[in-house]
Amino acid sequence: MAAARAEYGRAGWASFTLDGVARRAGVGKAALYRRWPTKERLLADAIGEHARLPAPADTGSLRGDARALATALLDHFLAPSGWVTLRVAVDAATGLETFASFHEQIVRAHREGVADMVRRAVERGELAPGTDTGTFGEALYGAVLVHAMAVAPRRREHVREHAGEHALPLADFALASLTGGADAAGADGSSAD
Amino acid sequence: MAAARAEYGRAGWASFTLDGVARRAGVGKAALYRRWPTKERLLADAIGEHARLPAPADTGSLRGDARALATALLDHFLAPSGWVTLRVAVDAATGLETFASFHEQIVRAHREGVADMVRRAVERGELAPGTDTGTFGEALYGAVLVHAMAVAPRRREHVREHAGEHALPLADFALASLTGGADAAGADGSSAD
Repeated sequence: MAAARAEYGRAGWASFTLDGVARRAGVGKAALYRRWPTKERLLADAIGEHARLPAPADTGSLRGDARALATALLDHFLAPSGWVTLRVAVDAATGLETFASFHEQIVRAHREGVADMVRRAVERGELAPGTDTGTFGEALYGAVLVHAMAVAPRRREHVREHAGEHALPLADFALASLTGGADAAGADGSSAD
Repeated sequence: MAAARAEYGRAGWASFTLDGVARRAGVGKAALYRRWPTKERLLADAIGEHARLPAPADTGSLRGDARALATALLDHFLAPSGWVTLRVAVDAATGLETFASFHEQIVRAHREGVADMVRRAVERGELAPGTDTGTFGEALYGAVLVHAMAVAPRRREHVREHAGEHALPLADFALASLTGGADAAGADGSSAD
């Protein structure tokens, strides 16, 4: 499975082959073909397992949850395997029907995680009932994703080692909008690192 | 150039070939090879041209600028050619040195556009001098990108036709954080459509 994701992450769908995966995994092609007769099936299994990003942790506060999620996401996107998720989105968008259901699965898992985080905050009285979670989730995931994409390749490992520091202003920016302004953005002076 | 981008957007770098581009463009391979001896050179030219996303328009207000930019970006990301930018980021991140300079070029162009937008807002007195533009830009671009990525493939054309409606809450969410809360988010009740 890891070999399948690595092979896909490197090359994308257009040159993803069972042979390539077998070579990378150091197993015989025959064994691979017996279990996964097509490359669609192999990739579906490999991605299905991987789409389970760590769910947002329950840290006891909205700000703690958002910072922990942003840090975990940044670490994820800067890891080589993290690009699998992104490649699926790109390949799905270019019209590969194979990817429609993986894509939907990934989108749904992430949306539910953010909705859970916001529901806990409403239950704790940190947010008003009925707070819209969709745009908050898009801004939080998006800020982390663009931050990761903008990192020069040679600096990725360095930034990944300091993911907490990099993620903190991104989480606080999204929170400030959700909770109505400056009072939410780092007002306690604490650090996620 | 359009054929090169289309070929790259479809398949990614791993299966990008001068032959594929020649076939798609309906021109002879010999002519293509004379002008671009390597696929790196061809793609560099094709992407260099395309990296010039429409600069954020000067609409006379920060909110107008942010909404116009979000709408243009959403339209861009939902267009088939828009995935070229994203593929470059993914391919660069997986370590293709070829892409390091394209990547840097794209990142710099977008950062400068956002910095210009914020500078105009500071000059008009809409924002305090010294406002940090980096996180705002990442949240704005990111929210639009994730929104585009989450659209089911079969709905892309529909959402693209209504890009203004979809982009408006994304722009307003990022603005609300930048300008200190709820007073910025759609307070005038106007619509970007």
